[in-house]
Amino acid sequence: MNNPSFVLKGDLCFSRDPQTLNAVPNGYLVCLDGKCAGTFAQLPAQYQQLPMLDCTGKLIVPGLVDLHVHAPQYSYRALGMDLELLEWLETHTFPEESKYRDLSYARKMYPAFVRDLVRGPNTRACIFATVHVEATLHLMDLLEASGLCTRVGKVNMDRNSPDSLREPGAQASLDATRGWLGRLAGRYQRTKPILTPRFTPSCSDELMAGLGQIQKEFGLPVQSHLSENPGEIAWVQELCPQSRFYGDAYHLFGLFGGEGCPTIMAHCVYSGEEEIALMQRQRVFIAHCPASNTNLASGIAPVRRYLTEGIPMGLGSDVAGGTHTSIFRAMADAIQVSKLRWRLQDSTLAPLTAAEAFYLGTLGGGAFFGKVGSFLPRYEFDALVIDDSRYTPQGSRSIPERLERTIYLSDDRDLAHKYAAGKQLF
Amino acid sequence: MNNPSFVLKGDLCFSRDPQTLNAVPNGYLVCLDGKCAGTFAQLPAQYQQLPMLDCTGKLIVPGLVDLHVHAPQYSYRALGMDLELLEWLETHTFPEESKYRDLSYARKMYPAFVRDLVRGPNTRACIFATVHVEATLHLMDLLEASGLCTRVGKVNMDRNSPDSLREPGAQASLDATRGWLGRLAGRYQRTKPILTPRFTPSCSDELMAGLGQIQKEFGLPVQSHLSENPGEIAWVQELCPQSRFYGDAYHLFGLFGGEGCPTIMAHCVYSGEEEIALMQRQRVFIAHCPASNTNLASGIAPVRRYLTEGIPMGLGSDVAGGTHTSIFRAMADAIQVSKLRWRLQDSTLAPLTAAEAFYLGTLGGGAFFGKVGSFLPRYEFDALVIDDSRYTPQGSRSIPERLERTIYLSDDRDLAHKYAAGKQLF
Repeated sequence: MNNPSFVLKGDLCFSRDPQTLNAVPNGYLVCLDGKCAGTFAQLPAQYQQLPMLDCTGKLIVPGLVDLHVHAPQYSYRALGMDLELLEWLETHTFPEESKYRDLSYARKMYPAFVRDLVRGPNTRACIFATVHVEATLHLMDLLEASGLCTRVGKVNMDRNSPDSLREPGAQASLDATRGWLGRLAGRYQRTKPILTPRFTPSCSDELMAGLGQIQKEFGLPVQSHLSENPGEIAWVQELCPQSRFYGDAYHLFGLFGGEGCPTIMAHCVYSGEEEIALMQRQRVFIAHCPASNTNLASGIAPVRRYLTEGIPMGLGSDVAGGTHTSIFRAMADAIQVSKLRWRLQDSTLAPLTAAEAFYLGTLGGGAFFGKVGSFLPRYEFDALVIDDSRYTPQGSRSIPERLERTIYLSDDRDLAHKYAAGKQLF
Repeated sequence: MNNPSFVLKGDLCFSRDPQTLNAVPNGYLVCLDGKCAGTFAQLPAQYQQLPMLDCTGKLIVPGLVDLHVHAPQYSYRALGMDLELLEWLETHTFPEESKYRDLSYARKMYPAFVRDLVRGPNTRACIFATVHVEATLHLMDLLEASGLCTRVGKVNMDRNSPDSLREPGAQASLDATRGWLGRLAGRYQRTKPILTPRFTPSCSDELMAGLGQIQKEFGLPVQSHLSENPGEIAWVQELCPQSRFYGDAYHLFGLFGGEGCPTIMAHCVYSGEEEIALMQRQRVFIAHCPASNTNLASGIAPVRRYLTEGIPMGLGSDVAGGTHTSIFRAMADAIQVSKLRWRLQDSTLAPLTAAEAFYLGTLGGGAFFGKVGSFLPRYEFDALVIDDSRYTPQGSRSIPERLERTIYLSDDRDLAHKYAAGKQLF
């Protein structure tokens, strides 16, 4: 059953592009060898011998994609929310992350993160671990066993962080990273590495240059943070005076997208014209993290503009800047803050619609993983079967209406079945 | 058991004022004849004979208060959220509310609203029904049976609404209101009426004048909407040219607070100086509805200013402008939008803290019901026993930290017991 073939029957809903929502009432979703073979109003003859799970009346949508989440922060989500970014990092984040130097602490804490991720609607995630190799490998072991499909980063940081967390110099950080990568060969099917310089304030030029070298050698993707908070941006300009703007401080070291270097940058609340142009040129993915940008009082990213300009983009929970891992929640948050931005900041950028937010949380972010986030043919088979009868009486609403209510009202209680890359998680 | 006496043991947390959170770890909360007798670290001798429910390790807080919710809108919450206020009213609200002219529709729809309200954390609510007397009485019957303590309004509207919903003239609306009030005598203990002119655009001057007369005769409280949306405010100025500002359009008819006329005004996003001064003088309660003001792209109310000026205030879910009835969710929403307002609109108004949001959702709104919303002596006994172990391992966090996480993370699964005015609901 590594590459299974089967059929799901139910009310199908998926994105084709940011504006187009496809709905197939009482339709058939075919999985062939772990890949989506398409959606059908009538089941074609050649699939009629496949095993079928009858989910009539239930909503079936692609698995959701979280482009930005911090695994070690899950244990203190929804705490200290009265602080701003840099103060919150000092008070909560850094002391907690330090504890993961001790593998036994990782063994105690990471299982709850993975367990709750499995129970929720996300099938894919790009995850920050900590600087610690052993703890990161333990997290990757747990994720591999879970069936989720993830990219996980051992974090790099060699400056501006407490002694207990900072790696002892650029070379030590680079050596640890190479050591970590060396231990991954053949170890995982669904769990892949991603280079993770925490953000410019935490990484010296020497470290960044070395990571750029590793990136080229291994052809690895990259994830980091960008233009989240005005104070942070000013600090980056001081720390990296040779950069023309924040994004340039990654680009100078070959860590900002382009051919062979798929990159996710979280936040992009305050990206200026040059930075936006560079992201567009380099096909950098934006991880829009509305809850985190609200909780840490950072601001609201101009998502409508990024969509219009065709910059690759998905959603991030950014736990624990965000409090919930569910990307359904991130969709609702994204719509909501886009309305406030329209009202308070810039009425030329129309609010997001439910269809657009759903696109971002499925196909938009899924593109970082390849053909992921839709039910179009040849997409990887990530699917959620949702029993929405708790909040929508059967037969009372259209599929797009049921999807809108699911975005706002569903929680893990409502998930009946979940599939990631063809594998059934429950 | 009408006025029971008993003791709850657990981790107690309640507000004394907007800034002061009282915490009593492993304490005793005494209910005497349905009223709170106080909180104690050691159980005083005179209470040791009372029956005790041991909730050790659980969090015990006052029941939550929803100052603004529309019962007939519950069935379509989280739908049509891509519209603004006036368009949303035309498309969703008015057509749905029209159906309640048929008592059998009310019998079909209202039970889910009341059932879910019982399961959630609110013990008190000020509720808009519809214009229909029979349906409103049915809702009140259900609420009375539930044990919740509520104020319910038959809505008045005689203009600017579809024929199917509009009452046929001011006199008909006033007659229906008197007829409704006449049928309440002796019928309910926990379910009281409240005068409910929908908002100025829906109510002619003649209707407002007649409601002002009824208010004086019956000494009833009043609830309505105020200064929610710029388009709405401009419309009120056209419709009621003799008013100096929106709030004045209620005040002219004696429906805006003051001695003997307790009043709730929902929203107050755009109240100007004169309106704020009048609310303060008349002790008008503001129902702050952050989710609704976000979903309908109305804006963000200056809650910090209202707090500082001592205007009475609580929170409203405003379902179905809001999508969730839980006032814990409204607390989180209130904190979050206050941060965005601080960042985007006015950095002189500091964001709300978790303690302040908790105050608003308990004691702040509770004051509209009398001595409600705290565990201070002589307060009515409204209490929630919360098993927060799903998101906070026992013994790992302080009571204020557990409260913060409960605000952001809890849902109805986590409620172990619930009491309203001394009565145990579950």
